[in-house]
Amino acid sequence: MNIRLIFSSLGSVLCIEAVLMIPALMVSVIYGQDDVYAFMISMLILLAAGFLLRLLKPKDSQMYARDGFAIVSLSWFFISVFGSLPFLISGAIPTPIDAFFETVSGFTTTGATILTEVESLPKGILFWRSFTHWVGGMGVLALVLAVLPSVKASTVHILVAESPGPNPGKLVPKIGQTVKILYLIYTVMTMIQIVLLLISGMPLYDSVVNTLGTAGTGGFSVKNTSIGAYNNVFAEVIITVFMFLFGTNFSLYYQMIKGDKKSFLRSAEFRFYLGTFLISIALITINLTGKIFGTAWESLRYASFQVSSIMTTTGYSTTDFNLWPSFSKAILVLLMFIGASAGSTAGGMKCVRIVLLIKLIRREVHKIIHPRSVYTVRLDGKPVDDETLSGVTVFFFAFIFIFAAAVIIVSLDGKDMISNFTAVAACIGNVGPGLEIVGPMGNFSSYSVLSKAVFSFCMIAGRLEIFPVLLLLDPSFWRKVNI
Amino acid sequence: MNIRLIFSSLGSVLCIEAVLMIPALMVSVIYGQDDVYAFMISMLILLAAGFLLRLLKPKDSQMYARDGFAIVSLSWFFISVFGSLPFLISGAIPTPIDAFFETVSGFTTTGATILTEVESLPKGILFWRSFTHWVGGMGVLALVLAVLPSVKASTVHILVAESPGPNPGKLVPKIGQTVKILYLIYTVMTMIQIVLLLISGMPLYDSVVNTLGTAGTGGFSVKNTSIGAYNNVFAEVIITVFMFLFGTNFSLYYQMIKGDKKSFLRSAEFRFYLGTFLISIALITINLTGKIFGTAWESLRYASFQVSSIMTTTGYSTTDFNLWPSFSKAILVLLMFIGASAGSTAGGMKCVRIVLLIKLIRREVHKIIHPRSVYTVRLDGKPVDDETLSGVTVFFFAFIFIFAAAVIIVSLDGKDMISNFTAVAACIGNVGPGLEIVGPMGNFSSYSVLSKAVFSFCMIAGRLEIFPVLLLLDPSFWRKVNI
Repeated sequence: MNIRLIFSSLGSVLCIEAVLMIPALMVSVIYGQDDVYAFMISMLILLAAGFLLRLLKPKDSQMYARDGFAIVSLSWFFISVFGSLPFLISGAIPTPIDAFFETVSGFTTTGATILTEVESLPKGILFWRSFTHWVGGMGVLALVLAVLPSVKASTVHILVAESPGPNPGKLVPKIGQTVKILYLIYTVMTMIQIVLLLISGMPLYDSVVNTLGTAGTGGFSVKNTSIGAYNNVFAEVIITVFMFLFGTNFSLYYQMIKGDKKSFLRSAEFRFYLGTFLISIALITINLTGKIFGTAWESLRYASFQVSSIMTTTGYSTTDFNLWPSFSKAILVLLMFIGASAGSTAGGMKCVRIVLLIKLIRREVHKIIHPRSVYTVRLDGKPVDDETLSGVTVFFFAFIFIFAAAVIIVSLDGKDMISNFTAVAACIGNVGPGLEIVGPMGNFSSYSVLSKAVFSFCMIAGRLEIFPVLLLLDPSFWRKVNI
Repeated sequence: MNIRLIFSSLGSVLCIEAVLMIPALMVSVIYGQDDVYAFMISMLILLAAGFLLRLLKPKDSQMYARDGFAIVSLSWFFISVFGSLPFLISGAIPTPIDAFFETVSGFTTTGATILTEVESLPKGILFWRSFTHWVGGMGVLALVLAVLPSVKASTVHILVAESPGPNPGKLVPKIGQTVKILYLIYTVMTMIQIVLLLISGMPLYDSVVNTLGTAGTGGFSVKNTSIGAYNNVFAEVIITVFMFLFGTNFSLYYQMIKGDKKSFLRSAEFRFYLGTFLISIALITINLTGKIFGTAWESLRYASFQVSSIMTTTGYSTTDFNLWPSFSKAILVLLMFIGASAGSTAGGMKCVRIVLLIKLIRREVHKIIHPRSVYTVRLDGKPVDDETLSGVTVFFFAFIFIFAAAVIIVSLDGKDMISNFTAVAACIGNVGPGLEIVGPMGNFSSYSVLSKAVFSFCMIAGRLEIFPVLLLLDPSFWRKVNI
């Protein structure tokens, strides 16, 4: 690994993070609250650290996959450490592990919180908290690549490491151009949602912050009872639809804009995503009617919002689904693992991987029936290479493996098994709330420091899809240090 | 598929099952209880059905993989249906679904029960219940192959479909010989355990029946509080050790008998099995001491028994581990999924698969570090072919997939999530007890008929390692009917 290249890249990332604090600083200036200094001090520290790291000029600017993966995972760790400064300095979150947890949860678009009460916090701080969702959703490194004047071809490894999905493709040959297009689509969709929420009657500040949480499929809210606090059906429908839209593969939007009107229908992942979404809503609606809500319409209202929120791994809530029957809760927990689409801002395993794994099961059964035939797994008509398939199967196992190990460690705190299981599922899937203690009306504050560190690790591992993080844990990676 | 071949083979299996009822009949004659007629009627029905099916002489006796797999999965369904007759006819279990569930649970060596009280049942019935463990552990079809005078080479597909593990090997070139050796080792070990239990002071009947449950790693007991009822430390130690031994790959015993003294140490699976076993005992002992038991020795006694029982998927208990702390319970639940060794009588995913999956994760990470190198996954020094690796990864996903689907369906009964989750885990892993409602002091009786059908499906799918059962669910298999 190329230490100088990695750390000078980290320097650039920290400088960008200082710039990213400007909107939050402006919010705190506008509202005239005393978090202004917290942002100014944080920005100075970030710029100082960033410029210091940038002094390490790389001797060799060629970037290999291992360097790209290391840059991404270390960047996500660093931006979370430095991003927690405003929380700490302002006193909004007094303990370092809690501030770190909250920032990791923000950037990874998880939305899990250690705060027991949010409504009394300064507006600038809450803005920053939700703004990390927006940046983390599309990718911090992607943003760096988008704003850099010239981007080398070898930085594709950064995009591969940071973008969700088994086979992140470039939309156009140039990487810098690809990320600019993605951020443009992202920004336009964000703007539209803000305007719609304003029309629905939500105040400006709330519209902006709740949209940031929707766009990044994050789920931090400025209300203690999340979106339920507004009791605004129109706003709920807007957020339900936009969570689904932000959980859709962005390359489909690009293809649609380019004139391909059937791009959505042709995508096996989108069909699976939409199908699972609709079936889950139908099953939960039937299950809730008469048990939790009096009418089917009311059940549909809460079921559709919650399915959209959990499947896209956003984590907003409009009701305490912890009180729902086991069947509905089991479906929601399963959706936490499935997640939404590759190439979106959502977490979880991603629908395309489930689609490919189901195809692999069928191939295995067909091999028994016709042992001499050759089976090629195809996706949207194109054959999928063995490299991608092996990546998908190993990802699945590695995901479950980290999940299981985390549940065991977290169980040391002695809390009930449902809380532990769903807390880890909600973190590694970047969902946010789980059930019981960490349910939509609960939070993660009562877990130990060790557990919070494990949760933070799971959130980053889930957001970066395991391998960039596993790379850092492999001793043979560190043996090849190149200064 | 060759319908005639499949059904005439089923006929042979049913005839063998009639013979298998002789020991239970003898027990009921000895104890002079009124279950004698139940066995005699059952045997007559079995022989009639068996001879009728054998009238279907196959036109083509060549067996393909698909035929072998279909024979195995259909056989397991049929022997469970017919094997439930003694329970029904004697009135020990009055409802068909419960009798079917109990018989599936027996043959698949699960040991999950719908009985709320066992001690009052006739001795012959309880013997049959535990004897199904013994037969199912090593394999019903394997027994058929062992007793048939001449066995064709193509029947290897039956052995592959029924034997646990990713790559079941033949010990010797001839299949009939291989299964005879396996059954010989199995019988000798069973005898030794019966003698040792007698020495420990356990009554003869109990020694035999509890040994049958240990050998098959089944777990049905003749006491309501399982092995804990004897409060006999010596017997507990014997059972702890023998559960571990029956969870070991039997080919290692064969190699040891043939003079290879290092066969155990050379096996990566055995090292993983033993390591996980010892680490789990250590962690649970530490966790229990001071919380549940006063001394470390007492904790060690219960921890070692329970780890051995759960990891080997036997399911005996000496205490109500449902009351243990979350950390200990989380480890036990994880062990349910891991299971013991391939080529043993145990269930679960099997240690060798976990070993291979961990190697695959490392290969994937190494590919990032050294993209141009070629990595061969090796097991015990030998390269593992891609066919086996793809079978292992797909098995893992298919296992989790069926597990998740079953949890969702079972949740319809509205029971708590821990019961549902561990009930399915205990069934698909062939363990027996789970937690809460289905804990060691509980049972499966309160679930609905649909749930019991799902549990039965999971037990057979787990015992036959998914693919033979999935084959029957594939429409393209039925399209190729050949009469």
